[in-house]
Amino acid sequence: MKLTRRYRFCASHRLDTPALSAEENQRLYGKCNNPYGHGHDYVLDVTVEGAVDGNGQVMDRRALDALVEERVLRQMDHKDLGKDVARLAGVVATTENLARAIRDALVLDWPAGDWPLAARLARVRISETDRNIFELDV
Amino acid sequence: MKLTRRYRFCASHRLDTPALSAEENQRLYGKCNNPYGHGHDYVLDVTVEGAVDGNGQVMDRRALDALVEERVLRQMDHKDLGKDVARLAGVVATTENLARAIRDALVLDWPAGDWPLAARLARVRISETDRNIFELDV
Amino acid sequence: MKLTRRYRFCASHRLDTPALSAEENQRLYGKCNNPYGHGHDYVLDVTVEGAVDGNGQVMDRRALDALVEERVLRQMDHKDLGKDVARLAGVVATTENLARAIRDALVLDWPAGDWPLAARLARVRISETDRNIFELDV
Amino acid sequence: MKLTRRYRFCASHRLDTPALSAEENQRLYGKCNNPYGHGHDYVLDVTVEGAVDGNGQVMDRRALDALVEERVLRQMDHKDLGKDVARLAGVVATTENLARAIRDALVLDWPAGDWPLAARLARVRISETDRNIFELDV
Amino acid sequence: MKLTRRYRFCASHRLDTPALSAEENQRLYGKCNNPYGHGHDYVLDVTVEGAVDGNGQVMDRRALDALVEERVLRQMDHKDLGKDVARLAGVVATTENLARAIRDALVLDWPAGDWPLAARLARVRISETDRNIFELDV
Amino acid sequence: MKLTRRYRFCASHRLDTPALSAEENQRLYGKCNNPYGHGHDYVLDVTVEGAVDGNGQVMDRRALDALVEERVLRQMDHKDLGKDVARLAGVVATTENLARAIRDALVLDWPAGDWPLAARLARVRISETDRNIFELDV
Repeated sequence: MKLTRRYRFCASHRLDTPALSAEENQRLYGKCNNPYGHGHDYVLDVTVEGAVDGNGQVMDRRALDALVEERVLRQMDHKDLGKDVARLAGVVATTENLARAIRDALVLDWPAGDWPLAARLARVRISETDRNIFELDV
Repeated sequence: MKLTRRYRFCASHRLDTPALSAEENQRLYGKCNNPYGHGHDYVLDVTVEGAVDGNGQVMDRRALDALVEERVLRQMDHKDLGKDVARLAGVVATTENLARAIRDALVLDWPAGDWPLAARLARVRISETDRNIFELDV
Repeated sequence: MKLTRRYRFCASHRLDTPALSAEENQRLYGKCNNPYGHGHDYVLDVTVEGAVDGNGQVMDRRALDALVEERVLRQMDHKDLGKDVARLAGVVATTENLARAIRDALVLDWPAGDWPLAARLARVRISETDRNIFELDV
Repeated sequence: MKLTRRYRFCASHRLDTPALSAEENQRLYGKCNNPYGHGHDYVLDVTVEGAVDGNGQVMDRRALDALVEERVLRQMDHKDLGKDVARLAGVVATTENLARAIRDALVLDWPAGDWPLAARLARVRISETDRNIFELDV
Repeated sequence: MKLTRRYRFCASHRLDTPALSAEENQRLYGKCNNPYGHGHDYVLDVTVEGAVDGNGQVMDRRALDALVEERVLRQMDHKDLGKDVARLAGVVATTENLARAIRDALVLDWPAGDWPLAARLARVRISETDRNIFELDV
Repeated sequence: MKLTRRYRFCASHRLDTPALSAEENQRLYGKCNNPYGHGHDYVLDVTVEGAVDGNGQVMDRRALDALVEERVLRQMDHKDLGKDVARLAGVVATTENLARAIRDALVLDWPAGDWPLAARLARVRISETDRNIFELDV
């Protein structure tokens, strides 16, 4: 059984890498390279997978919410991804790298097997806009 | 080729198990344990998988609709899941158990291979709210 | 300037009036008269209207959220509208009556003119499902 | 007859006014005052109103699209609202002020009465997130 | 109290008027003038307005559904608007004209004041796509 | 890492095969066999899969957009699928066959491995209406 919980946060970012010249950055990232940055309302879907227990649950949803709140939303909501988020230090704040940072933040010390986090993390999916969606199986 | 059909129904439920004390039920299920129950507008996605035939179809959609109508919607729409639905007798009416009951109701005697139900049942997906989604591969 | 904030809650209800016989109730309310009730994920849009102040705001959104939380969501979320909600005592828990109860709960002692609730309540809109929407101008 | 066209753009902003101290800004704007800003996927609905002509149209949609593209999207899409947008200079980049800036940009020299912009501008509606919507009648 | 019911239907149309030359039709209607037509999934919102009666209802929804089914959906669903729909004979099948045809079909002999159609028709709103919405107050 | 881009187009179609009689076509395709056709607002999701490069990207989105524009949207948007689209010649314009035609158009000469199309095509998903969705893994 897979359970997906949906979360939302808003943040700004600017795509720019020191490895390239100003012209190359502009050519590679287009409008996303604009000097002052821009932002999005990100939608984050976290999927866990596990067996249904005798109480009819795959895991405790409140435990998952608390983990996502602590490790993701508190770090990223209403923030500048490139300047405020430690897990994105040294990489460009593309949504590809954001998805990887969120997966890494969630799998870290995931107490699989024990209630309340009895299920395993199966997938992280994040949409930047409703036509730009990134998905990472774990 | 996979084909997904979407259905909707509304129902009420209360999460409560006789195996636990009142306090334990409250701690485990939280607000979902409130004595008089609450309800949802469930969205049910049924996915079938099969080959496309010479007429350009994977199966007859009206046959799938009739099956879902008879075995799921007629039993569950505008009902109390815990009190009205025979397939949920003896288990807590969580959406995990609801997804399993729907899958069981659909696979039963599924006449795979024959038109009009030429495709096999591949997945049942049900969302309780837009941030709480359950998925069961068959 | 109008500002609309969106809230969600889930609840169950059963449409049944003691003024009518069982047959008349069944004829009038149809499936909504089923004995054990059913439920919905209600979407509530609260609209306020006022002037934009020098800080660029029409009112303090957190104050509106706190008011809706205290007077609406805490009373109705994860509840049975007919049995749990004092403001619906004595009337049938249709969404028409629900919209009126929410408007009455919000306008009561609304401290119009003062910050943080500087704007006036303009409209209450509630959808029972995505094809059944009720709207009440204030 | 009213016609509404929907547009989307993404931008960043930070709410902060020089008229207040750092503490007062933090108290007034909350998370929206975070130093590096954050962002949104704005949805902009522009409504015009007019008579239906003999060709069955209220106005030329392509003319409206061109006007919105030139006066709004080109100025605001993938930008920082506070630093990049001339029409927001000197005011805080709240969505209230953003709605007013967009209305002002559109009504300016609106060639009402002539084809292709035969209808009058009736309303500007902008949502910051799906639960925060601002509306301005013209 | 306003009640809005949502309906869906799909149809094809081609925008072309005999009053103009082929070149003028192409210039006026653009891609919508393509010779073989194209189509949409129309979303129709019908709004009625009236007082809430002692049973908590503004009108009988099933009566409204039956009326829309008979006068609109049966005529238009899975049809070519220009060739199959009598109410659009002699006019171009723009969505402006479609909205007017639907309003005319619904107001005709509307038995206002009597149950079950106790409320008055207040508004017809139809979206051709999610960024092209037409609205007609009655 | 999977990246999904969403595109929209509207088109008309009629389901009818010369291999069957008029009565058989009507029985098989139901309303979709109506003589003048009908139409939809199709939503197309194209998913690619690949590694994230040092600039934080799985591929160049603009290259994917250009490919979909050239090989799909330009052929199909505002068209009649059965009469205007070469890739559907000789087959019935069901959405099953449409999904296959789009996949074939996209995989043809896909320059996998090279920037900007560095990722492989993984999935084509098309919804005819919001309750009828077709999915094809590549």
